[in-house]
Amino acid sequence: MSQHFADRLSIAIRTKGTPTCVGIDPVYDRLPADITAQDGLDDADDIECVVDAVTEYCRHVIKIVAPLVPAVKINIAFFEQYHWDGLEAYHELVQEARSRGLIVIGDVKRADIGHSSAMYARAHLAAPELGEVEELMIPDAITVNPYFGLDGVKPFIDAADKNDKGVFVLVQTSNETAAELQGQELAGGGTVAEHVGRLVNRWAGEPALMGVSGYSAIGAVAAPRDPAAMARLRAMMPNCIFLVPGFGAQGRGGDDVKPCFKPDGTGALVTASRSVIYAYEDTKYLESYASEWEKCVEHACRDFVKSVASVI
Amino acid sequence: MSQHFADRLSIAIRTKGTPTCVGIDPVYDRLPADITAQDGLDDADDIECVVDAVTEYCRHVIKIVAPLVPAVKINIAFFEQYHWDGLEAYHELVQEARSRGLIVIGDVKRADIGHSSAMYARAHLAAPELGEVEELMIPDAITVNPYFGLDGVKPFIDAADKNDKGVFVLVQTSNETAAELQGQELAGGGTVAEHVGRLVNRWAGEPALMGVSGYSAIGAVAAPRDPAAMARLRAMMPNCIFLVPGFGAQGRGGDDVKPCFKPDGTGALVTASRSVIYAYEDTKYLESYASEWEKCVEHACRDFVKSVASVI
Repeated sequence: MSQHFADRLSIAIRTKGTPTCVGIDPVYDRLPADITAQDGLDDADDIECVVDAVTEYCRHVIKIVAPLVPAVKINIAFFEQYHWDGLEAYHELVQEARSRGLIVIGDVKRADIGHSSAMYARAHLAAPELGEVEELMIPDAITVNPYFGLDGVKPFIDAADKNDKGVFVLVQTSNETAAELQGQELAGGGTVAEHVGRLVNRWAGEPALMGVSGYSAIGAVAAPRDPAAMARLRAMMPNCIFLVPGFGAQGRGGDDVKPCFKPDGTGALVTASRSVIYAYEDTKYLESYASEWEKCVEHACRDFVKSVASVI
Repeated sequence: MSQHFADRLSIAIRTKGTPTCVGIDPVYDRLPADITAQDGLDDADDIECVVDAVTEYCRHVIKIVAPLVPAVKINIAFFEQYHWDGLEAYHELVQEARSRGLIVIGDVKRADIGHSSAMYARAHLAAPELGEVEELMIPDAITVNPYFGLDGVKPFIDAADKNDKGVFVLVQTSNETAAELQGQELAGGGTVAEHVGRLVNRWAGEPALMGVSGYSAIGAVAAPRDPAAMARLRAMMPNCIFLVPGFGAQGRGGDDVKPCFKPDGTGALVTASRSVIYAYEDTKYLESYASEWEKCVEHACRDFVKSVASVI
């Protein structure tokens, strides 16, 4: 790998013609019957069956969305629930997606004090040195948590810089209670999220981290809440690509994500997870494609791409 | 398991006569030569050797400190750097420590939006349902990050409630740049850390979460910074046990941790990591115990216990 992360991502977005990302959060109980009825994948009480079924399903989803979107985001929590078997599956799926030319964001949301973050950075952003882990099993970028300040994020930034990887620091999240902390007003003005946004933009602005695309290897997770607040964040973080969660199942649509982009249509990567990967549970798709779950996923992904395209 | 976490911890502290915890953050390059020179543990380029060496060393450390302290904190980052082999080793060491009667805190610092945190809670706080993971391989408590507000923490609280486990929510961390975010003054008064402290105390105060010890299953990570600020946190979080990092290698001593305790000497569990587990690198111990690394660790642990005892 030799190209700056933000440049790789920008080119992938231009090539596919869409700034979208499919989030992969698999739950065994929601897998299509076509998967879980298969011999060897059908025993919900057997760890190998369960992990193999989840992996098989995700491989299909990755294959379906690979021609349609530039990136996937794989949430490690859904694999970590299966302990070390799940972690191996996570890395295999990172490899599967990267092998198909997708940009892969490992949604790991790690952070600790510096010398511990350095270990997480080694796990999730470094070229593997030992064992069966191959280069393609490590994602192109990961998500990290800002609660420790720069110390806790710096090892990830350094690893990104060294290995042409990316980091998306949580600034504003998509969940209901996010404002309990992130929405607090500071004595100096602005909210906690805006303060974190300013910090992240400063960290991201180091010349060594900037790509020719004009974006830094350090971006932000920025969920649309109210449009004015998002416009402020967008303005104060000119160097940062926004990874935008909350589309679809979490209730946000095209208009909500519009202010995450710059006027030129760059600067954001919108993620939809459950609304795409579980489209076969949605009557809208079921009616058209009956029991063909892969077609449901494909068309939900196409609809997602269209609804983002309609606002930029 | 049938006893409330805070009660189990309180009893363990009383039984051992000390509110201390040894933090286990192993790095292969710092292991004693007695370990890394052993056949099968001596190849730094072989993942099995490295993980086996780290595991062997940690087993010794756990055995040495088990009679001296009530608890150990195992930092998963140091295992996650070895990917799935490391994760299996982490769980084996949790089992080793719990089998020796220690309270085990899994220092995982996880959090995400609710439905993802539920997966992390399943990984780290639930009775294992599948595979080779045994009940003793799951820690008694874990650390979690508050950046998402209650949504992101609730699945951990629910799992703790259901399974008699504990949760320590990060409030004030021990690293240099913690104040960049945690130290910000809010328009409504107090710092971000104090605001998080108030939130955590409210979450912790649910009657169902309270033990007969008077403490909740939900505690806080609260590092001593300045004594007045710590006294405020201690006063505003009467229901929470403080997990207190930063002792020893990070520069804090007995006087710094005094305000983490209530006047009756309860309410805190002080952690030392590198100053104990790498004591054989310290000339103070080397001079007395020469190359006997286990004696160095044992005496550093005894000294740690003494210096905490001297202030409560």
